[in-house]
Amino acid sequence: LRSLAHIGHVELLTPSPQESLRCFTDVLGMRELHRAGDSVYLRGDGEYEQYGLKLKAAKHAGLGHVAIRARGPKQLDAVVARLVAAGVNGRWTDGDFGHGAAFRFTGPGGGHDLELYWESERFIPPSTEPLTGSRPLGLYGGPGVNVRRLDHLNLLAADPAAAAAFAHGQLGFAEYDRLHDDAGALVGSWLSLGSRPIELVYTQDPLRAQGRLHHLAFWVDTREDVLRAADVFVDHEVPIEVPPAQHTIGGGFFLYGFEPGGNRIEVTTAAQLVIDPDPDTRIWTASQRQAGVGWGTVFPPSWHDYGTPDLAAK
Amino acid sequence: LRSLAHIGHVELLTPSPQESLRCFTDVLGMRELHRAGDSVYLRGDGEYEQYGLKLKAAKHAGLGHVAIRARGPKQLDAVVARLVAAGVNGRWTDGDFGHGAAFRFTGPGGGHDLELYWESERFIPPSTEPLTGSRPLGLYGGPGVNVRRLDHLNLLAADPAAAAAFAHGQLGFAEYDRLHDDAGALVGSWLSLGSRPIELVYTQDPLRAQGRLHHLAFWVDTREDVLRAADVFVDHEVPIEVPPAQHTIGGGFFLYGFEPGGNRIEVTTAAQLVIDPDPDTRIWTASQRQAGVGWGTVFPPSWHDYGTPDLAAK
Amino acid sequence: LRSLAHIGHVELLTPSPQESLRCFTDVLGMRELHRAGDSVYLRGDGEYEQYGLKLKAAKHAGLGHVAIRARGPKQLDAVVARLVAAGVNGRWTDGDFGHGAAFRFTGPGGGHDLELYWESERFIPPSTEPLTGSRPLGLYGGPGVNVRRLDHLNLLAADPAAAAAFAHGQLGFAEYDRLHDDAGALVGSWLSLGSRPIELVYTQDPLRAQGRLHHLAFWVDTREDVLRAADVFVDHEVPIEVPPAQHTIGGGFFLYGFEPGGNRIEVTTAAQLVIDPDPDTRIWTASQRQAGVGWGTVFPPSWHDYGTPDLAAK
Amino acid sequence: LRSLAHIGHVELLTPSPQESLRCFTDVLGMRELHRAGDSVYLRGDGEYEQYGLKLKAAKHAGLGHVAIRARGPKQLDAVVARLVAAGVNGRWTDGDFGHGAAFRFTGPGGGHDLELYWESERFIPPSTEPLTGSRPLGLYGGPGVNVRRLDHLNLLAADPAAAAAFAHGQLGFAEYDRLHDDAGALVGSWLSLGSRPIELVYTQDPLRAQGRLHHLAFWVDTREDVLRAADVFVDHEVPIEVPPAQHTIGGGFFLYGFEPGGNRIEVTTAAQLVIDPDPDTRIWTASQRQAGVGWGTVFPPSWHDYGTPDLAAK
Repeated sequence: LRSLAHIGHVELLTPSPQESLRCFTDVLGMRELHRAGDSVYLRGDGEYEQYGLKLKAAKHAGLGHVAIRARGPKQLDAVVARLVAAGVNGRWTDGDFGHGAAFRFTGPGGGHDLELYWESERFIPPSTEPLTGSRPLGLYGGPGVNVRRLDHLNLLAADPAAAAAFAHGQLGFAEYDRLHDDAGALVGSWLSLGSRPIELVYTQDPLRAQGRLHHLAFWVDTREDVLRAADVFVDHEVPIEVPPAQHTIGGGFFLYGFEPGGNRIEVTTAAQLVIDPDPDTRIWTASQRQAGVGWGTVFPPSWHDYGTPDLAAK
Repeated sequence: LRSLAHIGHVELLTPSPQESLRCFTDVLGMRELHRAGDSVYLRGDGEYEQYGLKLKAAKHAGLGHVAIRARGPKQLDAVVARLVAAGVNGRWTDGDFGHGAAFRFTGPGGGHDLELYWESERFIPPSTEPLTGSRPLGLYGGPGVNVRRLDHLNLLAADPAAAAAFAHGQLGFAEYDRLHDDAGALVGSWLSLGSRPIELVYTQDPLRAQGRLHHLAFWVDTREDVLRAADVFVDHEVPIEVPPAQHTIGGGFFLYGFEPGGNRIEVTTAAQLVIDPDPDTRIWTASQRQAGVGWGTVFPPSWHDYGTPDLAAK
Repeated sequence: LRSLAHIGHVELLTPSPQESLRCFTDVLGMRELHRAGDSVYLRGDGEYEQYGLKLKAAKHAGLGHVAIRARGPKQLDAVVARLVAAGVNGRWTDGDFGHGAAFRFTGPGGGHDLELYWESERFIPPSTEPLTGSRPLGLYGGPGVNVRRLDHLNLLAADPAAAAAFAHGQLGFAEYDRLHDDAGALVGSWLSLGSRPIELVYTQDPLRAQGRLHHLAFWVDTREDVLRAADVFVDHEVPIEVPPAQHTIGGGFFLYGFEPGGNRIEVTTAAQLVIDPDPDTRIWTASQRQAGVGWGTVFPPSWHDYGTPDLAAK
Repeated sequence: LRSLAHIGHVELLTPSPQESLRCFTDVLGMRELHRAGDSVYLRGDGEYEQYGLKLKAAKHAGLGHVAIRARGPKQLDAVVARLVAAGVNGRWTDGDFGHGAAFRFTGPGGGHDLELYWESERFIPPSTEPLTGSRPLGLYGGPGVNVRRLDHLNLLAADPAAAAAFAHGQLGFAEYDRLHDDAGALVGSWLSLGSRPIELVYTQDPLRAQGRLHHLAFWVDTREDVLRAADVFVDHEVPIEVPPAQHTIGGGFFLYGFEPGGNRIEVTTAAQLVIDPDPDTRIWTASQRQAGVGWGTVFPPSWHDYGTPDLAAK
C-alpha cells in the first residue's frame, strides 16, 4: 500500500488574486514560475518539482485541489485500480503545467478534490553556479519569509473519521495521531505518507460543510525563521492569528495568519521525524491536547471556527 | 548625574527556600556560590561580579532589596550626598558577601529597599584554561536554561510617577519609555542606567501596596535559548504564565513563569540597545501598547493582577 | 526491496571507557539506561527505542557493529533470505538488551559488522506527565549538548564501491550522493533508508584497512544547538576538529570533535529531507565538492586521514 | 571625558560604485536614502539616525572618514577645545546630509580622517503604522542579509599604540582589549565609547601605510542571521573570506567577505556587553589569542595581510 510518495502541490482559490499573489511573493517569498489563465504557479526555493502552490482566482477562497505524487508509474496505476475497484468515481486528466496525467476524484468524508500523478518535471535552477554549494535545489535570499516549500495542509471534513479512513485505507497514509471528542468520536486525524509527522490533517468542520480548508502550511528551516516571519507579517500588515508557538501534536513550531484572499496560512518548522516504521497511533482527548500544549499557548476562537470558504460570513 | 553604573544584584524572598533554590540551580542553571544564614548567593555564568541573585528564606515571597553599583567611589559619594541633601533617610551598611559598603534606603513612590555600592569583587573562574576562549567570564554548559545574568526587574509601585521621577531625577536613570493611562497619568516607566533599554521598570500596583515585585528577569543570549527554556520549564513543571513572545516596549523576547516561592521570573533576550545618547522618552497609551504588541500576543489577567507578596491571596 | 527501516544503534569501542562514558553523558547529554559486562547502553532523549549507542570497552577505538531495524518481521526474514541466497555468511543471535533476534554478518567492501533486527522495545518515559506536551519521547533539559538521537555514521571502506553496491543492492539503501575521484572511481557514497539524506556513508579508507570508522553523528534540533555545542566542547575540553559549518553533500550543519576514546563524533542538524521518491544520484568530483562547500570551509588534513582504530599510530 | 556617544557613520570609498551599491542594497539589505554627487547614503533598518554608511565613488577602495556623534552640544565643544589645545589640526565643516556642523581632523598613529558632530536628524519611518509594534525604528523584511546597522570598524594603523592612545586619551574611548606582540608592543587595540565591547579597532598595518581600512562591520540580531548571511553571500557570489565563527576578543559571531569595491565587510552579532563600569584592559598575546579562539577557527593569510586600499596590489 506504499504507492504514494508525498503531497506535491495544492491549488488554492482566492477572491483577491492580485493581493494574494503579492502576499505569496513579497511576504512569503515564493517565486512566480508560470501563469496560465487565471492561475499563477508559485514555488518555494526548496521544492524539487516546479511548484508547490497553484493560486487560482475564484469567487470564494478555499481549496481547489490537492495533488499527490505516486512513487512510480506502476504504483500510480495500482492505487488508481484499487480506487476504481472500491467504487471511487474519478477521471484521468492530461495533467497540468509541470506534471503529467493525473487521476482526479473527490475524497469521501470531506468532499475535497484530490489528484494523483506520477510524471513530474524537476525544477532546474536557472544558473547552477552558486547552487553546487549548500542548496542544490534553488536560490536562497528571496524576500520576506522566504518559505522553502509547501509542507502540509489541514482540511475541514464533515465526517473526518470517514475521510481519515479513506486516506489510510485507500491511499496508504499512516495515521500518527488522532483526536477524539468526549464521546470517543474521531474529530481529528494527522496523516503522513512518510516520516514527516504531518502531511494531511482532517479535522471536524464545525459547519459540517463539504470541501473546506482550515490552513495551508509552508516550511522554513529554523525556529528563528518563524520568529522573523512574525516580524515580516507585521511589517506587511498580514494579520497574525496565532503568534509563534509550538504544537502538541507533531511538535511543529508555527505561526498562523491570513493571506489577503482569506485563507489561513501557517509558517512552520521543527516537526519531529517519525523514524519508527510501525508506530502506534497516538490517541488524544481534547483536554489532553489542550493540557498538552506544553507552553500553554491559548488558541483564539477563530482558529476553531474559521475555514475557507467562510460560509459563516455569508 | 551619571553616577550609577548598573543594577548589580537583587535579593529575592521565598517562603519555599529549598524548592526555589532547586529551581534557580537545576532549572535556570545558576550556580550556588556562597551560603550565609538563610541566604544563598547565586550567579549566572555571565556575571562579572560574584553573583546577581541573593535568595533569602522569608515568610512571604517578594523583593528584599535592589543593589545598584556606582561608576566609582567618588560617584557613590556624590549620589549619596545628593540623596541625603534631598532628605532621603538612609544608612550605610558594611556591605555583604562580594561587595563593600552600601547605602541603604527606601525609594519613594514604591517603598522598595534600594542599596548603592561601589566596591565589588570580580568573579575569578576556578580554572582559566577553557576560558581564555570564547567566554572569559565563566563556565558554560550549565544545566537547564543556563541563564547568563540578572537582566532587569519590574517593581509594582503605589505611585509609579513618584518612583520614576526619583529614579530619573535622583539616581540618574534614563526613562526610555513611559505608559500613560487614559487620563494621562503615568502607570509605567521603563528606566535604564545605560544602553540596555530596560533595567528597572515601575508599574502601577493594582493594590496600591508598598514594596511589591512584578518580576525578575534573567538574560540568555539567543531567542532559541528562550524557546528552549520553555521546554525546560515544562519538563521541570515550572508553570509558564506567558509563553515565548516579543515585547512592544524594549523589543525583548520573553518567557514568564513562576518559581516555587511564587515570584514571577522572566527569561529574556534580544532587547534593542539604545545607542542614541539623548532619545526622547516614548509615550505609550494602553491601547497603543496593546495594538503595538506586534505579534498580537495576549497576556493573561494574572500578568496584570499578580505580584509578590501576593496580598490578594491573604 | 524496502525491507529495512533505519539504523537503530551503533556499538562503539573505546579504550578509555570511563572517560568516554563521561563525555557521552556529561558533554553530549545522553542518558545511561543499562549496563552489562563492559558495555553501557546510552540514549538521546529523542530516541523511540531504548538506546542509540552501545559503548563497549575494548583494546582499540572503532566500530563494534551497526544495527539496522527492519520494517517488520516478514521484511526481516525476506532480507535475510536474500542475503543468504547471495552467499552472505551470517548467523542469528538472540539479540541484546532492548531488541530481539538479530542476523549478524560482515558487510563486503568494508569489513564492518552489520546486524539486522525487528523486535524492539520502545522507550517508555519514567513519568509521562510533562511528556504529553511538546516532546512525547523523553525528557529534555539534559546537560551539555543534549543530543536528541543517533543520526548517521560514516564508515571507512577499503572498497567503498563494493560496500555501497551491497548496501544499495542487497539492503535497499538509496544512494543520494556519490563522490568520484579524478579517475572516475567511487570514493564516497551517501546512503539512506528513508528521506533523511544521510544515514550511512562509505568513504575510501586511506589505509585500505578493514572495518574502520570515520565518525558517528548525533542529531540536535537547531543550528543554534550546534553552535552551543561548540562552546560546551570548549568548556569540557573535548577537542574540536572542525568548528561549526555546513556540508555540501546533504546540507547538514555540523561540528566535529573527538571523544576521549579517540573516535570522531559529529553533532549535526538541518540536513534537507529528500522528498523526491526517485531522485537521481548526484555525482560529485572532489573539486566540485570542495568548490561546492558553499561557505568555503577548509577541512584539516586529519579529517581526510584519521579513522578508528588509528592504525597509522601503531 | 565621556563627551562622545558612538560612531555614527562611516564614509566608504569604492572604485566600483554601482556594483558596491548593489551589494549593500540587494545583498546586505540596506536602503538608499539619499544621493548627492558621487555619494549614496545608506541605512540599515535599525539605525536611529538617517544613515550609517556613506558610499562614495573613488579611484581606490578604502576609508573616507569616520563620523562620531557627541553626547551633546557642550560635550562636542569641550572635546574639540581639548583637541585644539592638544595641537590637533582640524577644521569645522557645515556638516553633511543628515547631520550638522562637524569638526574634521586626521587622527595620529593611523592617518585616518575622523569627524565629530552633535546635531543629527533622526530617521522618521515613512509610515508609522506597523512600526508602533515590535521595531519602532524601521521596516523589517529587507532583502538579503538585512543588516540592522553599522556596528564597528577596524582600521589599520602604522602605529596602533599611538592611534589607540589618542582614541583613549583624547576621545574618551575605553580600551577593553589589547593585543601585544612577542616583544610586548601593542599591535591591536579594541575600543568602545559604551558598553558594546567593540566600536573601533586599531591593528598593525603590515605595510605601515597611512589611512587604511581592515573592515567595516554590520550588525544583525541573531547568530542564525549570520548563518543565513553566508548562504545569501554564496547565492549572490559575494566572496566569503572567513565563514561564520566566533571571535575570541569581544565574543562576537562573525562572517567576513568582500564587497565588489574590494573592501572587507563583516556581518556580526552576539558580542557580549561590557557591564562593568571600570574593567581592566585585557592583554592578549598572539599565541593566547590564537589558542583562545575557542572553536579553533583558522583565519586565512589574507585576513592578516589585506586591507584597502590594496597597496600591495599596485
